[in-house]
Amino acid sequence: MQIITARRLIIGKGKTVLANGAMCMENGQIRAVGDVKEIRQRFPQAPVCDYGDATILPGLIDMHIHVGDTQSRPDVEQGGDQLKLLYAASELSAALRRGVTAVRDVASEPGVCTALRQAAGMGFLRIPRIFTSGVALCISGGHGWPLRSVAQVNSPWKLREQVRSNIRDGADWIKAMGDSNLDAPEYTQEEFDAIVQECHRQGKKAAVHASFASTIDMCIRAGFDTIEHGIFMTPEQAAVMAEKGIAWVPTAMVCTRVARELEQMMEERGLKAESLTPDNVEVFLDVQKANSAADLRGLNTQTLRRVLFYRTVRAAYAERIQRFQRMGLTLLAGTDMVIGGTAPVPVEQEILCLAEYGLTAVEAIETATGNAARVLGLEGQIGTLEPGAAADVLVVGGDAAYDAAALQNTKEVFQGGCPLLNQAANK
Amino acid sequence: MQIITARRLIIGKGKTVLANGAMCMENGQIRAVGDVKEIRQRFPQAPVCDYGDATILPGLIDMHIHVGDTQSRPDVEQGGDQLKLLYAASELSAALRRGVTAVRDVASEPGVCTALRQAAGMGFLRIPRIFTSGVALCISGGHGWPLRSVAQVNSPWKLREQVRSNIRDGADWIKAMGDSNLDAPEYTQEEFDAIVQECHRQGKKAAVHASFASTIDMCIRAGFDTIEHGIFMTPEQAAVMAEKGIAWVPTAMVCTRVARELEQMMEERGLKAESLTPDNVEVFLDVQKANSAADLRGLNTQTLRRVLFYRTVRAAYAERIQRFQRMGLTLLAGTDMVIGGTAPVPVEQEILCLAEYGLTAVEAIETATGNAARVLGLEGQIGTLEPGAAADVLVVGGDAAYDAAALQNTKEVFQGGCPLLNQAANK
Amino acid sequence: MQIITARRLIIGKGKTVLANGAMCMENGQIRAVGDVKEIRQRFPQAPVCDYGDATILPGLIDMHIHVGDTQSRPDVEQGGDQLKLLYAASELSAALRRGVTAVRDVASEPGVCTALRQAAGMGFLRIPRIFTSGVALCISGGHGWPLRSVAQVNSPWKLREQVRSNIRDGADWIKAMGDSNLDAPEYTQEEFDAIVQECHRQGKKAAVHASFASTIDMCIRAGFDTIEHGIFMTPEQAAVMAEKGIAWVPTAMVCTRVARELEQMMEERGLKAESLTPDNVEVFLDVQKANSAADLRGLNTQTLRRVLFYRTVRAAYAERIQRFQRMGLTLLAGTDMVIGGTAPVPVEQEILCLAEYGLTAVEAIETATGNAARVLGLEGQIGTLEPGAAADVLVVGGDAAYDAAALQNTKEVFQGGCPLLNQAANK
Amino acid sequence: MQIITARRLIIGKGKTVLANGAMCMENGQIRAVGDVKEIRQRFPQAPVCDYGDATILPGLIDMHIHVGDTQSRPDVEQGGDQLKLLYAASELSAALRRGVTAVRDVASEPGVCTALRQAAGMGFLRIPRIFTSGVALCISGGHGWPLRSVAQVNSPWKLREQVRSNIRDGADWIKAMGDSNLDAPEYTQEEFDAIVQECHRQGKKAAVHASFASTIDMCIRAGFDTIEHGIFMTPEQAAVMAEKGIAWVPTAMVCTRVARELEQMMEERGLKAESLTPDNVEVFLDVQKANSAADLRGLNTQTLRRVLFYRTVRAAYAERIQRFQRMGLTLLAGTDMVIGGTAPVPVEQEILCLAEYGLTAVEAIETATGNAARVLGLEGQIGTLEPGAAADVLVVGGDAAYDAAALQNTKEVFQGGCPLLNQAANK
Repeated sequence: MQIITARRLIIGKGKTVLANGAMCMENGQIRAVGDVKEIRQRFPQAPVCDYGDATILPGLIDMHIHVGDTQSRPDVEQGGDQLKLLYAASELSAALRRGVTAVRDVASEPGVCTALRQAAGMGFLRIPRIFTSGVALCISGGHGWPLRSVAQVNSPWKLREQVRSNIRDGADWIKAMGDSNLDAPEYTQEEFDAIVQECHRQGKKAAVHASFASTIDMCIRAGFDTIEHGIFMTPEQAAVMAEKGIAWVPTAMVCTRVARELEQMMEERGLKAESLTPDNVEVFLDVQKANSAADLRGLNTQTLRRVLFYRTVRAAYAERIQRFQRMGLTLLAGTDMVIGGTAPVPVEQEILCLAEYGLTAVEAIETATGNAARVLGLEGQIGTLEPGAAADVLVVGGDAAYDAAALQNTKEVFQGGCPLLNQAANK
Repeated sequence: MQIITARRLIIGKGKTVLANGAMCMENGQIRAVGDVKEIRQRFPQAPVCDYGDATILPGLIDMHIHVGDTQSRPDVEQGGDQLKLLYAASELSAALRRGVTAVRDVASEPGVCTALRQAAGMGFLRIPRIFTSGVALCISGGHGWPLRSVAQVNSPWKLREQVRSNIRDGADWIKAMGDSNLDAPEYTQEEFDAIVQECHRQGKKAAVHASFASTIDMCIRAGFDTIEHGIFMTPEQAAVMAEKGIAWVPTAMVCTRVARELEQMMEERGLKAESLTPDNVEVFLDVQKANSAADLRGLNTQTLRRVLFYRTVRAAYAERIQRFQRMGLTLLAGTDMVIGGTAPVPVEQEILCLAEYGLTAVEAIETATGNAARVLGLEGQIGTLEPGAAADVLVVGGDAAYDAAALQNTKEVFQGGCPLLNQAANK
Repeated sequence: MQIITARRLIIGKGKTVLANGAMCMENGQIRAVGDVKEIRQRFPQAPVCDYGDATILPGLIDMHIHVGDTQSRPDVEQGGDQLKLLYAASELSAALRRGVTAVRDVASEPGVCTALRQAAGMGFLRIPRIFTSGVALCISGGHGWPLRSVAQVNSPWKLREQVRSNIRDGADWIKAMGDSNLDAPEYTQEEFDAIVQECHRQGKKAAVHASFASTIDMCIRAGFDTIEHGIFMTPEQAAVMAEKGIAWVPTAMVCTRVARELEQMMEERGLKAESLTPDNVEVFLDVQKANSAADLRGLNTQTLRRVLFYRTVRAAYAERIQRFQRMGLTLLAGTDMVIGGTAPVPVEQEILCLAEYGLTAVEAIETATGNAARVLGLEGQIGTLEPGAAADVLVVGGDAAYDAAALQNTKEVFQGGCPLLNQAANK
Repeated sequence: MQIITARRLIIGKGKTVLANGAMCMENGQIRAVGDVKEIRQRFPQAPVCDYGDATILPGLIDMHIHVGDTQSRPDVEQGGDQLKLLYAASELSAALRRGVTAVRDVASEPGVCTALRQAAGMGFLRIPRIFTSGVALCISGGHGWPLRSVAQVNSPWKLREQVRSNIRDGADWIKAMGDSNLDAPEYTQEEFDAIVQECHRQGKKAAVHASFASTIDMCIRAGFDTIEHGIFMTPEQAAVMAEKGIAWVPTAMVCTRVARELEQMMEERGLKAESLTPDNVEVFLDVQKANSAADLRGLNTQTLRRVLFYRTVRAAYAERIQRFQRMGLTLLAGTDMVIGGTAPVPVEQEILCLAEYGLTAVEAIETATGNAARVLGLEGQIGTLEPGAAADVLVVGGDAAYDAAALQNTKEVFQGGCPLLNQAANK
């Protein structure tokens, strides 16, 4: 039995933040949460660890990752499947030590997630809890088709068969690719329907990659449980989703990051990104070339179109995130960090990004805690600090309820009540 | 730069033990070794960590292991290749934390060791340095043939081809199966010759499983670099080996352990193991059955023959280990722990066992340090505490130079100068 | 021509039992059945064999077995396909000598049943007549999927193709897996329909594993000919089945046996099985542990849930078997003995078990004789003692019409009129 | 314990025939052999079974069969591997009941013999003890190459590899094809040498199909343990073989039978076989055609050449069998009955045939009893009636010591002391 306390404690569900909150853990579970005095009184024998000017909150849940993805690590990719597996283990292990206590994998190579999960169960390594879709489904030539983490499956019955095989092989969710970078749904309605029906009749849930409104319409109709990316979702769609209990995983940070990098590329070449418009995109480079000082290295019309597209994406998020959340839509944090350049599974950055788009820190944290647990069907079991839940807990320095940036300052992580960092704390 | 010191320091080569020895490490290497005063004087700025009543010695090298072997873990075996790889990583990682800083793998499944080594090189996990043979070679139906870590290869040219393939795939050594539990060499002389010649012309070394004198003769003639097990080696063979620089890896502990377990099985049934002899083995159980109190559960004539065989094995070790070492034969510590029931890679137990068979503690430690490094062709680079060597260092409580049992009391392990256990030490 | 007589003769259809009945066999067929005096008079030249205080009845038909199943024989499983085939031959041969003259196989490995049948036809061995489904059908990951006797087939058209292939390869029936140990139908209605339609249009019949009411509903709708297990069948379903001529194979003995073994396990540990309830199942073991005398070896919550489940199963049989039979539902004896521990194909134990659940001995025998023949479409050809039927006959000591336990006392078995045991009998 | 006695008892080794001999069996072994009075006196409690005018002799050993061969059963061949296995089981089972208690298989399809042997060991069927070579070895296109029981293997090292694989897969012997129907050795001397050396270094024996003197010379040089067929063996070769302990398996009956059938074919067509000579073979049919009454159906020059060849074969046996036996060459009975038309494994016919070629009945019986056991390396364990040998015993009506035709009159067969036929005998 162990009590921990800090200047503030975020429950992970709704707006509750306890000042001088404390919690008591026992046998891997949370026994009680409340004011530090009350908790000390109830459990007078329990040792108390006071983290001081820190925040205690539920371990974070990343709802959109790709376990073992090597798009940012061609050196690992080349090394073969065995190296990739050890890399995946290392990434997850580092993520856990940074406070990510659960992840939802939405496309990974065959067997990787189940092997990692089994190995963790046998004590061979310490990693977050994994909920996995196994390989994702796409049409022939669809989004991600060249990857081994994506299977090209066509027709309602072959999709049902693949859904069944994935479930047999340990999948908790099914992930479908609904569209890619074009406003063009990849599957037909019949196929979307078949995927979802087969999932639901087997008691599983389904996630879908859908960025454009036309695809999102079909996916809502089919009954998917989460919409991934959903960049150009309409307010009407958001309203229907809120009503039907369909959640949104905007993966805002990764897209915003690409937008910023492209803009930065323009700026580094002395170009004003704002001066690029859909109207002048075809002639832009020719015009610039005339300017002898221009450095157009690495730029071509295609890059410019990407600049424009991601500007739109950024604007879309800016319009929607706060608005849809206020409409009652459930938002979930997902990093989708397949492009490298950050710590593994940087869900705290997605939280920050959502905050930048207008959520309060506590709301943003909820997307990676209480909301995630509810959508996973594990309400009260993980993702919140409440009696009976697993003691998956994160302690960060500073006031995360006020400023989500505090999440970057990990002080301790508990997995099932077991501290992983052993950092000194004032008693 | 860091100085460590303890009541005694074992160099790992010859009989040198420094009282109040100290060493200074810098950039992953050993900078200097000597008396604590002298070292402090030479490096006055370096912080000093004094382990007190402890022994500093080179990290241990196990010269006979099978990475990822699951003979003692059918649960892992059943889980498939991915689980097995994660298990192997976990075992090696635990071994490192117990002081095993290098291992020679003498048969493992394809790609396992090279993937682990590459992953370690990329920083995905911390494990001992691995020198590996990849899959071992046996004749069709030879020792270990049903395992995926053993390849059935016949004829001089196919053996050369396999040797080349193994080297291409990352093997540092080649391992051949020379015999099994019968006094019957499995390969012909021509085949043994082909294996060794192909290894040596590519600058690699060759190890051979050879328990019986007839096989050992052929293997000495072929020029193998190490004889594994070598249980019934003759003094003449030991003398020739000493002269030719062929080393012996007796794997004494594992065989002794089996012998003890079998005898214990007899005793638990109220039988005197000594009363069993080759002459009465066929009638032994019938005679015992007449005794109504006898509990013969699990015993049959085959088991009794094993009891007799392992008694012979134990006697063979008792006769040979000290004697052959005194004759100048290089002995190496190898655990071959495929039977389970111990910590991973328990090389300190092999050292203890060799000490029980008559070596001094320092001699026994040398089999897992300086001797091993020399046979690996890495003299001065690992396995000894000397300037320029890698700072792979083990600190154990007590006086390991006097009693090898102290090796079981790990206090700290340095890999390339980096402490792994962070245990508090007196300054 | 040969006359046999005994104190009683069971026809196998309806309630008819002839006192001092006799039958005359010729050329492998039954020529006449009736009172011993009348039969002797009609065939004065025929030798008469009088079995005295015995019962003559049709050879037994087991409607649910798995030929060559090795779940209870891992030693055979390991030996490979050839050994398994010889084992299957041996099991069937032993079953025939115990009075089982026909079996319906409802899932076996490819080719096994047809090879055995062909070999028997060529005189290489003597075994019961075999009606077989070949491999059974399940969804990907469905009931029994890891077995080679079960094929994972999904979608209406692939199912039709598999049905056609099975029929091409010698199947007389088709067997589908409808559910497993959960109240969750595995196939969709469309798929169940496709299976049955394809069978029926080819003049074959279809059997389905369906334990739960939701699955049974779908299977009745699809038109399956027999429902296997059907543990939680509702009275409404039984009524519809009776009306439509769908038969029920409860396999009561095997499930009851598991229930008994689990309860016995409890009792052996000094626990009262009755004190376990759905309400206390989660805390039961903790409560018992407090009792220092408790021996909880081998028990965990999962086992306790099995105890509860099988208690429900047993209660379900107790409620349904007699009641549904009285409603006019056709019951069939099937052993499904994949769990070992009995004689091969112990159909007489299923008969006994049905009697314990409330059928009369003659009714219970009918489930393995006349009922079975009718469902197999072989009315008048096997399964009854009537002129023109094959002379597949069983003679048991005692009065099987009064007490089904007499079936365990085999005195003679005739296959096509040929006696297999040659036991002496009074003339 | 059981005593059996008969008017005569053949020991199976040398010329010893006991009048009124008796033997006592216990625990599957022979306890004592001698005069009936003496045996009764030694074991007064043992029941005695007197077979009267009969002969007791060791169970017969056929040293040249092909288990599961279907050359005479295309109907079985067509049925597939499973049917073939059941056929093989049936054939061996019938052979055992006719007194064949052991066989040496000298070419069979992969796994068949080992599966049968394992199944028998597990009690699934009763068949003779099997010693098997597994698949035989021939050059590409060599004798028997299209059969799955023969592997085409070329070069010394590939042969060694195949020998090793066969041994790994359960072979007790290795069988090579040395020639076919032409005086042309198939393997080179190097290859024959490699086969034999690899066998002998692994403690196994080697048999070779060699009909012609040139091949036999090479095979003697290589050191084969038995020469199969050996039709045109020279007296010099016989002398060397006798000296070196190489045995001869003439398979005389099968060849003689072909000779007879061909001659009969001639006679049925009204042709005098004697009038056909090597000189007139090319014109013979033309000459006969001139004779309008001639019926030449089915005859062509090739058939005539076969008539001539088999006439030579028969003459060769007539010259050699008695003569070589008198020279001290060990003869062994082998049936090689791949052509059908007899009971399974008709070794008693080979014995009869050898007697017709001049051996005494007792000498002919020795080829299938004591000689066979000695060559199998099982002297004193099977093949003779002597204390300590397995109680594999045959009882035939009449005096087999005087007339080998008595062997066709099987009265009882014991396998390991267990009677298989249960025929009534006078006490």
